[in-house]
Amino acid sequence: MADVDNLRVVLVATRNPLNIGAAARALSNFGVLRLRLVNPYDAAFREARSAVGASELLAKAEQYKDVGEAVADCRLVVGTTAGAKRDLQQRLLRLETGARTIKQQLKTAPVALLFGSERYGLSNEELSHCHWVMRIPTREEHGSMNLGQAVAVCLYELVRGRQVISSKITSGKKETASATSGEVGRVTDSLFQVLEASGYVKPRAAAGTKENLRRMIRRMKLNVEDTDMWLGMLRQMGWKLGVQEKKGK
Amino acid sequence: MADVDNLRVVLVATRNPLNIGAAARALSNFGVLRLRLVNPYDAAFREARSAVGASELLAKAEQYKDVGEAVADCRLVVGTTAGAKRDLQQRLLRLETGARTIKQQLKTAPVALLFGSERYGLSNEELSHCHWVMRIPTREEHGSMNLGQAVAVCLYELVRGRQVISSKITSGKKETASATSGEVGRVTDSLFQVLEASGYVKPRAAAGTKENLRRMIRRMKLNVEDTDMWLGMLRQMGWKLGVQEKKGK
Repeated sequence: MADVDNLRVVLVATRNPLNIGAAARALSNFGVLRLRLVNPYDAAFREARSAVGASELLAKAEQYKDVGEAVADCRLVVGTTAGAKRDLQQRLLRLETGARTIKQQLKTAPVALLFGSERYGLSNEELSHCHWVMRIPTREEHGSMNLGQAVAVCLYELVRGRQVISSKITSGKKETASATSGEVGRVTDSLFQVLEASGYVKPRAAAGTKENLRRMIRRMKLNVEDTDMWLGMLRQMGWKLGVQEKKGK
Repeated sequence: MADVDNLRVVLVATRNPLNIGAAARALSNFGVLRLRLVNPYDAAFREARSAVGASELLAKAEQYKDVGEAVADCRLVVGTTAGAKRDLQQRLLRLETGARTIKQQLKTAPVALLFGSERYGLSNEELSHCHWVMRIPTREEHGSMNLGQAVAVCLYELVRGRQVISSKITSGKKETASATSGEVGRVTDSLFQVLEASGYVKPRAAAGTKENLRRMIRRMKLNVEDTDMWLGMLRQMGWKLGVQEKKGK
């Protein structure tokens, strides 16, 4: 996780305390622990900090007067934009593309990732501190994302596919072994008997019906547990329908 | 963008109107236009809809009583989880991995992506409608994401790099279309009735038995033909066992 330690997320002139809180939560979710705030509305910052459940991360967030100060220790500074700016002076990269460069840089040096205010985004002055700018691939008709969601998406892209985190995810249910052909055959036989007792099988077409059943049951790719469950269910149906248990299996 | 038209985002029992609004915004950002709500808190839904700037997308959101209804037209149903559930019965995939399968399926058929309530996530009953479950790779110490952010991250992963992927190899053998969730649900219901009539279902364990059946039937990955065959067989068994046909389906 050493690389993510090098990332500083910088929120510039954020107005809404809920957005500061949401950004902080996303940082914590993805293991990014350094949040910096440039010139936030004081009330917003106070309110976000005092919110119920406000994280330690938020309590430790650092406050700066301007972008220059906030990114002074970083070797790469990247801005974000909804792409609506016509007079963008910097190179604009898709998030997927930019993230590759950022990840590379994070291995050796601090990187700042800037998010502008909810209403105006990053100003030209603020952008002038950036090496280049990234854009989340939203659709043109509605490009502008909610701040907390934009932060979450960018951090996800930076963390995505990393083995450190992946190895911690405990898998759900273990895949159960698939049934043997013999077990699958018993399901087919039991089902056939139940269907005979139900009057489903036409005597003259019995052989064809059995083939169809066999193919269908094979397509089910039964595992061992499901096979047991089916055999139990069919035994009960068969009993109710008066099917004789075959002797010796 | 035709493929994204096949995606239905389903919010289950959402409490907070801000989260419904945030989810709707993320859908719009990424060009996903179908939002479904299962059993939302009425006040939350009303408030989200009447919020300033509430989108057309939210106005068109469809409301359902339960998950089964909401996913009835979908051929693939995927749940999401923060990964805290210890007794998860389904296969758990990382978002990056699961998204590949979803994207493939979206080319030809409707897919539902489910998000549970803010406090409890998806219940076992709700999860039993899912083919498998995805998890965003957050860190273990703080796995649970804000709902709107989780929706944004999942949709980003589904939309990410779309131009690049467009050239696809078409597979050789045409497979028979997989059954919709509604069709699979009818198989489960019919089987349950037959088992009840057979005395297999213990009344006190009925709900659990039904969940087990639903999961098992889903694992069978029924195609349309097999579904018809099963429904025919079960109808005949049911008739012999004295099951009453439900009126109007």
